[in-house]
Amino acid sequence: MSEDVRMERDTFGEIGVPNARLWGAQTQRSLQNFRISTEKQSPELITALAVIKRAAAEVNLGLGVLDESKAKAIMQAADEIIDGKHPDEFPLAVWQTGSGTQTNMNLNEVIANRASELLGGERGEARKVHPNDDVNRGQSSNDVFPTAMHVAAAYGIVKHLLPALKTLRDTLDGKAKAFADIVKIGRTHLQDATPLTLGQEFSGYVAQLDQGIRHVEAALPHLYELAQGGTAVGTGLNAHPQFATQVAAAIARLTGVPFISAANKFEVMAAADALVFAHGTLKTVAASLNKIANDVRWLASGPRCGLGELSIPENEPGSSIMPGKVNPTQSEALTMLCAQVFGNDVAVNIGGASGNFELNVFRPMIAHNVLQSIRLLADGALSFNDNCAVGIEPNRERIDTLLNESLMLVTALNPHIGYDKAAQIAKKAHKEGTTLKASALALGYVTEQQFDEWVRPHDMVGHSAS
Amino acid sequence: MSEDVRMERDTFGEIGVPNARLWGAQTQRSLQNFRISTEKQSPELITALAVIKRAAAEVNLGLGVLDESKAKAIMQAADEIIDGKHPDEFPLAVWQTGSGTQTNMNLNEVIANRASELLGGERGEARKVHPNDDVNRGQSSNDVFPTAMHVAAAYGIVKHLLPALKTLRDTLDGKAKAFADIVKIGRTHLQDATPLTLGQEFSGYVAQLDQGIRHVEAALPHLYELAQGGTAVGTGLNAHPQFATQVAAAIARLTGVPFISAANKFEVMAAADALVFAHGTLKTVAASLNKIANDVRWLASGPRCGLGELSIPENEPGSSIMPGKVNPTQSEALTMLCAQVFGNDVAVNIGGASGNFELNVFRPMIAHNVLQSIRLLADGALSFNDNCAVGIEPNRERIDTLLNESLMLVTALNPHIGYDKAAQIAKKAHKEGTTLKASALALGYVTEQQFDEWVRPHDMVGHSAS
Amino acid sequence: MSEDVRMERDTFGEIGVPNARLWGAQTQRSLQNFRISTEKQSPELITALAVIKRAAAEVNLGLGVLDESKAKAIMQAADEIIDGKHPDEFPLAVWQTGSGTQTNMNLNEVIANRASELLGGERGEARKVHPNDDVNRGQSSNDVFPTAMHVAAAYGIVKHLLPALKTLRDTLDGKAKAFADIVKIGRTHLQDATPLTLGQEFSGYVAQLDQGIRHVEAALPHLYELAQGGTAVGTGLNAHPQFATQVAAAIARLTGVPFISAANKFEVMAAADALVFAHGTLKTVAASLNKIANDVRWLASGPRCGLGELSIPENEPGSSIMPGKVNPTQSEALTMLCAQVFGNDVAVNIGGASGNFELNVFRPMIAHNVLQSIRLLADGALSFNDNCAVGIEPNRERIDTLLNESLMLVTALNPHIGYDKAAQIAKKAHKEGTTLKASALALGYVTEQQFDEWVRPHDMVGHSAS
Amino acid sequence: MSEDVRMERDTFGEIGVPNARLWGAQTQRSLQNFRISTEKQSPELITALAVIKRAAAEVNLGLGVLDESKAKAIMQAADEIIDGKHPDEFPLAVWQTGSGTQTNMNLNEVIANRASELLGGERGEARKVHPNDDVNRGQSSNDVFPTAMHVAAAYGIVKHLLPALKTLRDTLDGKAKAFADIVKIGRTHLQDATPLTLGQEFSGYVAQLDQGIRHVEAALPHLYELAQGGTAVGTGLNAHPQFATQVAAAIARLTGVPFISAANKFEVMAAADALVFAHGTLKTVAASLNKIANDVRWLASGPRCGLGELSIPENEPGSSIMPGKVNPTQSEALTMLCAQVFGNDVAVNIGGASGNFELNVFRPMIAHNVLQSIRLLADGALSFNDNCAVGIEPNRERIDTLLNESLMLVTALNPHIGYDKAAQIAKKAHKEGTTLKASALALGYVTEQQFDEWVRPHDMVGHSAS
Repeated sequence: MSEDVRMERDTFGEIGVPNARLWGAQTQRSLQNFRISTEKQSPELITALAVIKRAAAEVNLGLGVLDESKAKAIMQAADEIIDGKHPDEFPLAVWQTGSGTQTNMNLNEVIANRASELLGGERGEARKVHPNDDVNRGQSSNDVFPTAMHVAAAYGIVKHLLPALKTLRDTLDGKAKAFADIVKIGRTHLQDATPLTLGQEFSGYVAQLDQGIRHVEAALPHLYELAQGGTAVGTGLNAHPQFATQVAAAIARLTGVPFISAANKFEVMAAADALVFAHGTLKTVAASLNKIANDVRWLASGPRCGLGELSIPENEPGSSIMPGKVNPTQSEALTMLCAQVFGNDVAVNIGGASGNFELNVFRPMIAHNVLQSIRLLADGALSFNDNCAVGIEPNRERIDTLLNESLMLVTALNPHIGYDKAAQIAKKAHKEGTTLKASALALGYVTEQQFDEWVRPHDMVGHSAS
Repeated sequence: MSEDVRMERDTFGEIGVPNARLWGAQTQRSLQNFRISTEKQSPELITALAVIKRAAAEVNLGLGVLDESKAKAIMQAADEIIDGKHPDEFPLAVWQTGSGTQTNMNLNEVIANRASELLGGERGEARKVHPNDDVNRGQSSNDVFPTAMHVAAAYGIVKHLLPALKTLRDTLDGKAKAFADIVKIGRTHLQDATPLTLGQEFSGYVAQLDQGIRHVEAALPHLYELAQGGTAVGTGLNAHPQFATQVAAAIARLTGVPFISAANKFEVMAAADALVFAHGTLKTVAASLNKIANDVRWLASGPRCGLGELSIPENEPGSSIMPGKVNPTQSEALTMLCAQVFGNDVAVNIGGASGNFELNVFRPMIAHNVLQSIRLLADGALSFNDNCAVGIEPNRERIDTLLNESLMLVTALNPHIGYDKAAQIAKKAHKEGTTLKASALALGYVTEQQFDEWVRPHDMVGHSAS
Repeated sequence: MSEDVRMERDTFGEIGVPNARLWGAQTQRSLQNFRISTEKQSPELITALAVIKRAAAEVNLGLGVLDESKAKAIMQAADEIIDGKHPDEFPLAVWQTGSGTQTNMNLNEVIANRASELLGGERGEARKVHPNDDVNRGQSSNDVFPTAMHVAAAYGIVKHLLPALKTLRDTLDGKAKAFADIVKIGRTHLQDATPLTLGQEFSGYVAQLDQGIRHVEAALPHLYELAQGGTAVGTGLNAHPQFATQVAAAIARLTGVPFISAANKFEVMAAADALVFAHGTLKTVAASLNKIANDVRWLASGPRCGLGELSIPENEPGSSIMPGKVNPTQSEALTMLCAQVFGNDVAVNIGGASGNFELNVFRPMIAHNVLQSIRLLADGALSFNDNCAVGIEPNRERIDTLLNESLMLVTALNPHIGYDKAAQIAKKAHKEGTTLKASALALGYVTEQQFDEWVRPHDMVGHSAS
Repeated sequence: MSEDVRMERDTFGEIGVPNARLWGAQTQRSLQNFRISTEKQSPELITALAVIKRAAAEVNLGLGVLDESKAKAIMQAADEIIDGKHPDEFPLAVWQTGSGTQTNMNLNEVIANRASELLGGERGEARKVHPNDDVNRGQSSNDVFPTAMHVAAAYGIVKHLLPALKTLRDTLDGKAKAFADIVKIGRTHLQDATPLTLGQEFSGYVAQLDQGIRHVEAALPHLYELAQGGTAVGTGLNAHPQFATQVAAAIARLTGVPFISAANKFEVMAAADALVFAHGTLKTVAASLNKIANDVRWLASGPRCGLGELSIPENEPGSSIMPGKVNPTQSEALTMLCAQVFGNDVAVNIGGASGNFELNVFRPMIAHNVLQSIRLLADGALSFNDNCAVGIEPNRERIDTLLNESLMLVTALNPHIGYDKAAQIAKKAHKEGTTLKASALALGYVTEQQFDEWVRPHDMVGHSAS
């Protein structure tokens, strides 16, 4: 064992760490003290932390508070993490200290050991770079971790979620335009209603996503504000006066996302409101996607005993017992993940509401949920787009059949004979199983010529924008 | 009974209605069919519906599709409702048809009967104004009800919630400025941390509310978009081509809120995303208020066995058994209602995600929750402001005592002697119950002069903006 | 004003109270300090509090710590409240002190003043009965309010919710039996599946409610445990040693519900777990009802463009614009209120999780949500039963048509020709729009005789219990 | 590539599968069609599925519908999976088809290929065992997956969660007994209240867990009911009449948990109520643990500026910037995971409420959340127990100091001088910063001898059970 383990040390004393690992005493201690479930800190968060460490070293070098060789080594080590070269070095659970201190130290320790090696030194206690005094210089977990949450969330939204939503939006917009001439029965309360075009129906989905994109974008300004520079409680103790703004600028440059230093550090550290709000926009998008996915699977229900107005791609066998069955599995995956986003929202709300004094200590949990929801919605929208939406086709014959059977075309008679007489016509046709026209003529409220002139489905889909 | 009841009629036939009431057959039928709990449609929603009816009559008159005497009578009847003159005429439950049709008909019926009386006619079947053909002209519940939800929500936000939040924000900002010189112990993880000023602590609350106000404002543009003119399924069937934009303009004029006609009617009718998003901003504010209210009650805990740094107004006896007890009741009311807002958020999410095809039929439930949350947050913020925040005072002596006992002032030594030695000093003092200074000197890491120069609480509260 | 207002007094001094009202200073003070929204303490809770006050007076009399005339007057005054004779005397908001102290004092004050009048005395400061020393004798809000929550919740469950669920269960069971012979297409993933009987489908609903009733019943034992006797912090200070058990027995007798004194008073006062758990059973029932209501409205969708397998009662006009439209409004009310119950569940969870030390101070909010959910589910189940379930009828012709068109009858061939060949048959029929039989014969996998013998829908509905 | 990949086939045609993997075409197809986030099907669920496959093969062998060599090979392959020998063969996402069909097929394919190899055959299309016709014999995903959910959940509860809760309960009970003699100040509303013993305070936690254990146990009977034997829609089509009960018995034997065949298969397949209810019990436990964890961290707050009544183990450095800081990290991990459980609850509710007709298709999501919550609570309770609860110690000196300063000891005077005079004493002492005794004597309401006799903290902790 002596060969496989080296002793690392923190203020609590010595602890054995596997020699193959770059992490140090505090990471090891956390591993042992928090054996809780299987959820690890998200890779997106680890990357964001490495970006911060890189930016901090660069700024500290420029400010003259860190010597050049150490700074360069720290930057190189951080770049390796950003490039995914150390995937096994970040083993800590979501369920740890609520400030994320242990994961901040995990980064500090890995970078310190790796930077030491880059400088020709050892990993372990004789290292040439100190996790706290050098890597964490001018920082506190209390400002690093909130900063990483904002960086990871904003980056995920800007680079993954918004493009995914736009892709799906464009696909549906293409369908809306392609289906602009297909008049079909409308349905309200699941009951037959007045007609509209299939294009109009899809235009509603497009409008939902257009609004959803705007809603998500509204979350960005607050997320762009970074806590870095607040150090322990927001006052910036032990950090250089220019550290905060310079770090934010460096992070903006490294990520290509316009981060700035938060005007008020106390707010971004004591609360997590930017993330609560951001998740509020995510759950709104989930509500939209859920509605769209449900409509698609219901309209594609059948093939013989459902609504059957749409065909969707057949991607896989649907049943282990019923041969030939094909199911709307992309809708199912999408609605399941929307339910998860609604659940995550509650966890984020509770975490966000539960800060005390100078620090919110529900951070790893909040980060876990926000980043998961971003991934779920981005990946889910793309999967639904690629494996379902692009292949949606109308079943024109079925659509026509249903349209022509509907009783709600009677609504077109309102302006001519009034609501009450129109209702009599519809009710009589329903009761007797006849057509509207037969019923209308039998009741004597209109002539055949009037009926044919007034009840034209293609004239009932209106002037309202699609 | 024959004297107290008149017969009203709808397409289902006759039904007896109390003579004293202006409502008609469909309202009465709903009363009988939905005997569910005690929650009624919100007054704010009834008012919004009356505004719509008034605007529609005015527009229909202008468009020449409703004769002048009827239009004027409808407008006058609607105005009476807006003015609160018919409070007992809207008895329907939240738990009714999911489109709100019955409440739309409640308005149509009351206005038709009242307008008939204003024209010298009767209430009841011989009335001079028709609920559907006249009052509901160019409308469908499917566009009226979503419109009313947007109008009531936006109005409540603009006229009540935002001013209330600004009031509380200003009070806290005044406190932040008044407390700018009071250095106190910081607390992270509920444990003693480095100092900050009480003003800085309060500045965090102000920043939370500033952000919260921006978040809520972000919900308004989508809420400003009205469904009116979409009629049954969004196509605008049976409505005049100019009806939609003219009604929106009229509603904007009547309310003083800049409503517009929705670019896509299918989206605002089939979904409720604007309200899901709006409630997402409300729950964000709830998270902020919850944090603020908790901090205040913890800082005011005691009087002898708690933190005791703040005094809050004593408004009422606190206990039915413990004489002289005073409790942070405003914080309690505020945190309770924040929990309710988090619950309401889930109900709204489920409702918003559950639309099908051309209509969302969870509308009365969504309206109930959104309008309740707006009321709760607006009233709750004002109550907390008036009965608590304005009277918050610091207990300077207690604050000083705690500050000077703290061990975390040791952090100021980091840049001079490093994290590890500083930790030794703090741990020794903690274990032995001595002061930091005694411990530092005993360990020989600093001289007395150095300690006094480096560990100055008032120099530790930093350059970070308050 | 001097004639309409009398001065009442508490430890904070004098305050004017309307002479017409029986309440006193603390109620009045709460009215003024908590002007928050419109939600009032539930009538069920007020009744439960009156039951406690009556029981306490009786027990205090028996224990010799309250004189007979006062005790009798208190009991009579409490009985009047239980009988609903003072509906306007309990005006306090849900959003008040989190212990419910002000509502406990509301009861104490109303009873003290009313009891004084019953003894020939006045209402007001010269009253013959003291709100704290007499009415609240041996009690604290901290044990009274949790007791009232348990009493109101258990009573509502036992007397209203469980009977309502049983009524709906019996109706559905009657349908299951009546529909036992109707073979219909099954649907999984909204897609056609193998057949079952309509009776089997309904038997699933019955089983859901049977389980739901058991789940709700599991909540009762914890709810039966009462905090009364714990007084301020659970120790029972100032209460007679026998007070706790005797009061529980008296409450059990008065309500007909088997309440007992909680074995551990600290738990029932510091936490609200019994109510968190009880609401967990309510939300389970909501999940069941939501599924049932959704199935019913989908199976009744149409009349011409939906599934159309069931007919449900037509109770009211469905549309203000589409004449003759009938909607599944009872399903809509029921699913809306289920969404509300899911929302309430979150509020209850947050409240229940947020107690500190000796007291949970989210009580009025928790009570509000639990009692509302009980009302919603009880009333909602009954409304759905009376106005929808009892009138559900199968559309046998439609059911037959769909059954015979289905491709999933192919599953019956699996044991004879294997899954892969059966899949080929189904896919070919689907692609070519032919019958299964035609496809099977064309592929040569079975003879006509084999097909007719093996593919018999009525033989496919199995041996599984309905 | 031709060497690394073999072609597998399903009803959709050929698809390349890595030769190193045992899975087949449908697993591969799912991998490609559902590239959504990082959440995989839980190991507990995979194990449960393997148990089902093993039991089914055994029962099919006994019933004579599967030949012995195949059955034995299937059983052996399943045992290998149960023993954890194929950890890399189950790569599918939670976000797939809502019935879990693809994961059922993953098991069928891996077992078929592995069984084929055990029989000396190949993996791939020439295999000696068929995934559907042999491994899945008498089964459908629609009964297999719900069965696996019940098996995994019940097993996790019985074998992990309940023992973990009992461990923590016993630790806290030990503390309650050890602290039985320590009188301390009570706190309600965060304000000083009447005293109790620290043992009494801890007895409340014990009672919470005792009740919580009972609540969780109440979820088991419904979970014990298995869907297996219902096949596609609950009718049992294509399964032997004795298959259902024999499989349930075999699963019970294999797991040591008393599973039975569900009386009504339609309910357990169409709904997920047993899991909704089970999660309702989990969230109740979360509410309890949250309260306990919060109390512990608040009582341990300080070391110098908090309540400081308890000491908890110091397990790791608390801050990357503040030397010597120790934080209540176990409480933080526990409260974070409780928030997650509350979030998961909402996701489960939505999934459970969203079934349609014969199948609930939110199953993988529900399974993911239920199994995660079980893991979180079981591991979290143990971690809190081992790393915090066992080491909790009282700070007797601090507890005494606070007790003696409290003003709420005045409550003991109520029975002697009445509530109003006692309140005057407390208020005067509070205002003037004096002791209660000084205030009482100054007001002349008691003599010194009376005060000393009546106000004895140790006599105020009562007769109520601890």
